[in-house]
Amino acid sequence: MSPKITTELLKQLRQVMKNPKYVQEPVQAYIVPSGDAHQSEYIAPCDCRRAFISGFDGSAGTAIVTEQHAAMWTDGRYFLQAAHQMDNNWTLMKMGLKDTPTQEDWLVSVLPEGSKVGVDPFIIPADQWKRMSKALRSAGHDLVPVKENLIDTIWTDCPQRPCKPLIMLDLSYTGVSWRDKIVALRSKMAERKVMWFVVTALDEVAWLFNLRGSDVEYNPVFFAYAVIGMNTIRLFIDGDRMMDPPVREHLQLDSTLEPEFKIQVMPYGSILSELQAVGAGLSPKEKVWLSDKASYALTEAIPKAYRYLTPYTPICIAKAVKNAAETEGMRRAHIKDAVALCELFNWLEKEVPKGTVTEIIAADKAEEFRSQQKDFVELSFATISSTGPNGAIIHYKPVPETNRTLSVNEIYLLDSGAQYKDGTTDVTRTMHFGTPSAYEKECFTYVLKGHIAVSAAIFPNGTKGHLLDSFARSALWDCGLDYLHGTGHGVGSFLNVHEGPCGISYKTFADEPLEAGMIVSDEPGYYEDGSFGIRIENVVLVIPAETKYNFKNRGSLTFEPLTLVPIQTKMIDVNLLTEKECNWVNEYHQKCREVVGAELERQGRHEALRWLLRETEPLARVQ
Amino acid sequence: MSPKITTELLKQLRQVMKNPKYVQEPVQAYIVPSGDAHQSEYIAPCDCRRAFISGFDGSAGTAIVTEQHAAMWTDGRYFLQAAHQMDNNWTLMKMGLKDTPTQEDWLVSVLPEGSKVGVDPFIIPADQWKRMSKALRSAGHDLVPVKENLIDTIWTDCPQRPCKPLIMLDLSYTGVSWRDKIVALRSKMAERKVMWFVVTALDEVAWLFNLRGSDVEYNPVFFAYAVIGMNTIRLFIDGDRMMDPPVREHLQLDSTLEPEFKIQVMPYGSILSELQAVGAGLSPKEKVWLSDKASYALTEAIPKAYRYLTPYTPICIAKAVKNAAETEGMRRAHIKDAVALCELFNWLEKEVPKGTVTEIIAADKAEEFRSQQKDFVELSFATISSTGPNGAIIHYKPVPETNRTLSVNEIYLLDSGAQYKDGTTDVTRTMHFGTPSAYEKECFTYVLKGHIAVSAAIFPNGTKGHLLDSFARSALWDCGLDYLHGTGHGVGSFLNVHEGPCGISYKTFADEPLEAGMIVSDEPGYYEDGSFGIRIENVVLVIPAETKYNFKNRGSLTFEPLTLVPIQTKMIDVNLLTEKECNWVNEYHQKCREVVGAELERQGRHEALRWLLRETEPLARVQ
Repeated sequence: MSPKITTELLKQLRQVMKNPKYVQEPVQAYIVPSGDAHQSEYIAPCDCRRAFISGFDGSAGTAIVTEQHAAMWTDGRYFLQAAHQMDNNWTLMKMGLKDTPTQEDWLVSVLPEGSKVGVDPFIIPADQWKRMSKALRSAGHDLVPVKENLIDTIWTDCPQRPCKPLIMLDLSYTGVSWRDKIVALRSKMAERKVMWFVVTALDEVAWLFNLRGSDVEYNPVFFAYAVIGMNTIRLFIDGDRMMDPPVREHLQLDSTLEPEFKIQVMPYGSILSELQAVGAGLSPKEKVWLSDKASYALTEAIPKAYRYLTPYTPICIAKAVKNAAETEGMRRAHIKDAVALCELFNWLEKEVPKGTVTEIIAADKAEEFRSQQKDFVELSFATISSTGPNGAIIHYKPVPETNRTLSVNEIYLLDSGAQYKDGTTDVTRTMHFGTPSAYEKECFTYVLKGHIAVSAAIFPNGTKGHLLDSFARSALWDCGLDYLHGTGHGVGSFLNVHEGPCGISYKTFADEPLEAGMIVSDEPGYYEDGSFGIRIENVVLVIPAETKYNFKNRGSLTFEPLTLVPIQTKMIDVNLLTEKECNWVNEYHQKCREVVGAELERQGRHEALRWLLRETEPLARVQ
Repeated sequence: MSPKITTELLKQLRQVMKNPKYVQEPVQAYIVPSGDAHQSEYIAPCDCRRAFISGFDGSAGTAIVTEQHAAMWTDGRYFLQAAHQMDNNWTLMKMGLKDTPTQEDWLVSVLPEGSKVGVDPFIIPADQWKRMSKALRSAGHDLVPVKENLIDTIWTDCPQRPCKPLIMLDLSYTGVSWRDKIVALRSKMAERKVMWFVVTALDEVAWLFNLRGSDVEYNPVFFAYAVIGMNTIRLFIDGDRMMDPPVREHLQLDSTLEPEFKIQVMPYGSILSELQAVGAGLSPKEKVWLSDKASYALTEAIPKAYRYLTPYTPICIAKAVKNAAETEGMRRAHIKDAVALCELFNWLEKEVPKGTVTEIIAADKAEEFRSQQKDFVELSFATISSTGPNGAIIHYKPVPETNRTLSVNEIYLLDSGAQYKDGTTDVTRTMHFGTPSAYEKECFTYVLKGHIAVSAAIFPNGTKGHLLDSFARSALWDCGLDYLHGTGHGVGSFLNVHEGPCGISYKTFADEPLEAGMIVSDEPGYYEDGSFGIRIENVVLVIPAETKYNFKNRGSLTFEPLTLVPIQTKMIDVNLLTEKECNWVNEYHQKCREVVGAELERQGRHEALRWLLRETEPLARVQ
């Protein structure tokens, strides 16, 4: 990796920062955040502006360019990568280290008095704007919105915003029609006495209209906004996608519908002016509901007194609770995914000893097996295929420079998943193709105990996921071990592999309570820098639990694993398991055998079936 | 309980709300919160203004009086009591119920346009002021500070503010001199670049100067503020207490000290004007550190740009970590407390079958045995002595109207504690003096499992207490049971029985990480309305834990019980315990035997010793 030479680009950026064509007054600093206008986790190439200006293309980072300086804030995952990818024009600001200034403090320390700091108001979320604006103002500076994105003005070969065809999902996949979703949304709006709801997150637009796209890699979404009124539906979307007859049919664009279900299609770029028009036409007590993470630009379009902001939107919450059709789809997707992984692990077992399988080859092979399955669309995230010390890099993705060869001497960690038309998968298995050491087995078994502690937990209705996080760590803690990431995230249904509003992590407090039908991952781990990484991840469905008693009639919940891939028994030190844990493993493997075994049989994959049967032999616990 | 007749009082209050002698402009509503000017949990009789105006004397509640209405907000613990104690002038606002409006919403609904809402700026914390002021302003009203407390103007027989003698604690109790505490505080101030620190919480003043008082029942504190500069110390305190030669000696008021340790004693009531003078004399970059829970009046005395507000003060954090002298004192106090409880339970065992022991008699007897112990000062909170259905009322305190007689047929729950000069205790034991039912034993055993799960937990340095809360519930959850309170609170060292900044509760997220030397309670429970209550509470000390490995060199922590009172084995269903849990109980009882047994022997309390020996017989687990 050689760094990107940015001298000329920075010169150009500093020129446009003073160019009256783009800025009312010159700005002395310009902020380039990571995100897009929808606050997406995964972004399209045309939105990779921070990577364009700096060369650093990690998933998290904020660049700030002043007349004299260029600085990049990123976290511990990316210190090395950012240092390699950026030239000497850039100062790396290592977030999380004690002496690293915040962006606000740094700006205050380098800016001349009374400076203007520019940012694209479509990219910065309203809550971030508020915080930064306040800090700058108290030091005598001003945060100002710069309507035209200044990076776009100098990015001559900027790729076009993708505008790929749409996929329509019928009731067999979604369980609920988009009309019924609108009805439910409007009833939530009525409850809160709001007249308008602005849909800004891409997965929320996709979910609401039972449409999918492929504008962004790994996330089956498309660029669009929607504004839902009590009697109107406006969809802001570009391209001739709305000319496609099946799409018109799906959205009933040409039917004689009741007016309140008639979708007005508008250009993607007209959202701001339309929202401003809505804002200008409000009568007292007419509120507009927005996510508090919506962009500053859209939030400002609604006068402050009329805004109703919540951390989670009603769509985000409804989307998280999967209905029967979605749950069945997720089950099917996970069975197909398990078939692919049985094939892969069987193949790896034969090939790894030959010394010819690299991390990249293994990842490609996993994709190949998955792509053979019905309704496969794409991967759901970049495959983490890592062996030996690479396994300890939690967000590792193999590239030619780091690509290691799998061997019988090292632990192999594969964290991968796919988008199928009926569901999204995300599974991690940690394997050894030779003989694991006692220490490796010991660590693996603690991680397994944590995985089981969450998966088998019974907890009252209304419990927030973060309250379960410590269960995953208890066995590790007992021995002085731990892992420095959360335990689980919400998973979409043929949608984003990471979604809110639920999860299992000590880092959050604002998650919504778990309820039956929600789907999260359960993925504790243990990582030893320079040696190995262990993680065991299933996607699990929240289901009602039968309990002996029922305090305050609240009811109880537990989890059912949707992922049905064997957990390598060779890695388990059975003597560290309790009887209950041992039974959990055996029952889990029995279910893998039955369900995935039947599908392997059906698909005529006999060798993989034999592998499955061998890998799911019951554990025998020494009494 | 007959309600207090408040018609005349409300008339008087409504008059002073318009009286230019007290208010610049008439106020259309007046808020009467529960607290005092120090945001104390326990308050002196002269500060019980809300009880005076309404009749409702529960520990939590806010009264608002308008020209037409009088309303009282309180939580579920007090719905019944408030309804009984208040007359028809009052509307009870049941907090936590769906249809109950917030104070702000209610005010907006009843006030005429452009109203003024008054509140005592010394009683309302700055953060509450901010929230309420914002809500009122956005509806066109104004929250205004009314300097003279309007209740005080009509409270003709208001008791005087207590001004009791001070107790001096020498190094053998405190471990650190007040001078060294000032030095440490100034070094924290220098780290944060603040020039002044304002001590507003009563227990923080007491801790800082190694003084105790008895101005407030149960909390050994005295009314005072302090303002610490880098070179000055100002103590705001009333009465002739500072004339007492030992106090002068303790504070070295007459010594020729370095000027930066010279304490200037000032009248309690001069805090505001002195702080305003400090505020007026600040040069740029000179900050003043205050708790964000300090009163609006004191916070406003410092211009906004100069304020440095934190949720926990450096004194709060330093005070929480007990040094060796304090820890040893707490150990001694808990041994004496255990002696008193062994005497009590032995006595109860003999007396209860006679049918003559009521909840109040039992509570008094507990106090009598405690008062026989060396350095006993007072109780640390109102004793919860409850039998049968009263045990299910979590914050029960026996009064003649509710007083039940203990019997051999009902569970008895005693939650009690004391202030000794060397430490503060808080212990709950649940006993049966006859034969408990299988169901009662089952529930007790789940609670015990939760108690042990926390007490024996091993967790990394830096873990916040709220992450341990679910451990206490897991066994109950497995059977569909739970309890609706937190699991633990910080405990002071001959100070408040409830103190921050640590605790063990699902309700908080802002607690400070646990560290060795902190002391918290571990008190899971189970309550069945109308039947019984179970709680098992020990005070536990955070200590370093030995672990097999040491991830990232962080070190691990665990708890050591300071409370050493037998847990009634008769109530335990041994078959529900794991081997590890059974061993924990046996080891705990062995320690009670050795440590408390030796003290009972020393004090010649042979009958109680025999009771202890019988109650600490090892459990035998059926294999």
